[in-house]
Amino acid sequence: MDRDSLELRSTVSADGTLRMALEPVRLPEPGPGQVLVRVEAAPINPSDLGLMFGPADMATLARDGQALTARIPDAAMPSLRARIGQALTAGNEGAGTVVAAGPDQRHLIGRRVAMLGGAMYARLRLIAASDCLVLPDGALAEQGAALFVNPLTALGFVETMRAEGHTAIVHAPAASNLGQMLARICGADGIGLVNIVRSPAQAALLRDLGAVHVVDSSAGSFRDDLTGAIAATGATLCFDAIGGGETTSIVLNAMETVAARDMATYDRYGSAVMKQGYVYGALDTGPTVLRRGFGFRWAIGGWLLFHALRGLDPATVERMRQRIVDEMTTTFASHYTARITLEQALDPAIVAAYVRKSTGEKYLLTP
Amino acid sequence: MDRDSLELRSTVSADGTLRMALEPVRLPEPGPGQVLVRVEAAPINPSDLGLMFGPADMATLARDGQALTARIPDAAMPSLRARIGQALTAGNEGAGTVVAAGPDQRHLIGRRVAMLGGAMYARLRLIAASDCLVLPDGALAEQGAALFVNPLTALGFVETMRAEGHTAIVHAPAASNLGQMLARICGADGIGLVNIVRSPAQAALLRDLGAVHVVDSSAGSFRDDLTGAIAATGATLCFDAIGGGETTSIVLNAMETVAARDMATYDRYGSAVMKQGYVYGALDTGPTVLRRGFGFRWAIGGWLLFHALRGLDPATVERMRQRIVDEMTTTFASHYTARITLEQALDPAIVAAYVRKSTGEKYLLTP
Repeated sequence: MDRDSLELRSTVSADGTLRMALEPVRLPEPGPGQVLVRVEAAPINPSDLGLMFGPADMATLARDGQALTARIPDAAMPSLRARIGQALTAGNEGAGTVVAAGPDQRHLIGRRVAMLGGAMYARLRLIAASDCLVLPDGALAEQGAALFVNPLTALGFVETMRAEGHTAIVHAPAASNLGQMLARICGADGIGLVNIVRSPAQAALLRDLGAVHVVDSSAGSFRDDLTGAIAATGATLCFDAIGGGETTSIVLNAMETVAARDMATYDRYGSAVMKQGYVYGALDTGPTVLRRGFGFRWAIGGWLLFHALRGLDPATVERMRQRIVDEMTTTFASHYTARITLEQALDPAIVAAYVRKSTGEKYLLTP
Repeated sequence: MDRDSLELRSTVSADGTLRMALEPVRLPEPGPGQVLVRVEAAPINPSDLGLMFGPADMATLARDGQALTARIPDAAMPSLRARIGQALTAGNEGAGTVVAAGPDQRHLIGRRVAMLGGAMYARLRLIAASDCLVLPDGALAEQGAALFVNPLTALGFVETMRAEGHTAIVHAPAASNLGQMLARICGADGIGLVNIVRSPAQAALLRDLGAVHVVDSSAGSFRDDLTGAIAATGATLCFDAIGGGETTSIVLNAMETVAARDMATYDRYGSAVMKQGYVYGALDTGPTVLRRGFGFRWAIGGWLLFHALRGLDPATVERMRQRIVDEMTTTFASHYTARITLEQALDPAIVAAYVRKSTGEKYLLTP
């Protein structure tokens, strides 16, 4: 049995150098409850990039033999203190075929599985069977590669909406793979969704999926369109993966404009309608700017999938997982614009392309 | 019985004019449960200024007979739509002497009371006895004028802290009347408090009250001092009345720095410690800027006294009210830097002084 793997690892050293390389590792035999999986496909999500490159200055990318290096700005080093000298594995999720298994998991050998748990940018992954979804016969690795992070996040938004008493959602940017999943979920479940996109082409893509409320932030009528869509859906909850800039602020102000229309009397503290924004990504790492024209009934916070899942009861999570497998080729289908190997992931020209984080562009690693 | 009052009223007209004037009103006889109070003292709180002047351009203040006028910038008019044409009364709280009473409240005639409920900038106030605190014999009107908003807010912060599982508080700006009350409460109750002030003089004032952790945002060592004080107290909750700028952002980043010291392994999503900021004022009406170096376990929201009180059980609120009366001349003493009449409140030169909102400067209206 081949247990020799290559793992992509990212290391920050105390002198401010980031180094990414493929490191040979020999994995132990699978123990009870474990399977050894040959990784066949793993998406590069924005959250993966954070771990791979951190705050490195991408203009300083260079080759050092087989490795890739970059400089970390001095100002960013304090935030990385806890990872100095550690060769961190990367890749939140992926799919592959089980090539070996612990004594109680032998029935999985030869099955294709989707996996969650990190270290997916590798030839082989030793993983707990409970962190895998067994895919239906005939499922492609590419179809199973991204069945955790985006699907669970999209379903998690809906669970957060229900738990906090909201009835509709605003999402930005909505044309991402995640955004498309959310549009399909909300369409199927009859949930109001305001999709904020950044171009007419993205708007067309979402309308083709059946999305009803699509507003284009590049349009001159953006704020009026947004206010109209919020009025139509009653959305008081927003999920924003951009993070930096004014997106959440603009949405909360539009929500307040809608809420104020229903106020019988003036209140200098604003409407009594609670407006909630969640920042779940950092596509723009610049400052979040809040123009507080939305009274005092508002909250904004970080939203993190793993934390949100811990707040749900196990039966709900199991139902989410089952739905993901059932609808893997429809609701939860992802699309990729490029496929690269582990070695190509260390090529400066290719890195420059996949770190751009353009909505709708998505890279798939195929070790 | 004299029931002829003068009420300070603020009106915004559709053409963008703000007009403030004293309007004669004849009040009805006090009914059951009501008392008629001769107002003797009422503080000018920042929240009162919001209603009195809204977003008016203070450079355009002018006299029009006995009235005061100012221009509202066009851009601000949409937010005032709900108050156009309404002559709004002002003054959240005050104190005075009961001069008449409904049949069931005659025992209060001649007693001095503290009041909450608006319309305090007036000669007379007809009010429910349940919205009054009866002051001890010999209490001065000035001592009773501000026994609601600041005392309940300071005690409310502590209740929010307990309800949300925090154990210490960061407060900015801490040298205000409210900040001094909070420092006395936390000192008496053994609660860790980090006081952010804006000058060495304010720092000295708070240290004289017994405050242990006082950090001066005008000092070069501010961020290090803040981080040290947060580490010493374990504060993960911040109340910020400034609102605009980076105060809350700086505090949350300092909290994350402290939390990160305890992390055994690097986590690209930041620490697991929940960091909560509340914006409870708008001394700076400019944008709130968040530099999100504090991971994904954070929340910021508006905090409003009246909403917070509704979330507390009645026994807790009653205990808060009793403590306020018991400690009115100590914990909850306010200090004023100037006393003005109703007529003077309409003098442009005096208005310019009392709208400045400098911490530690506080005006008292003495009708």
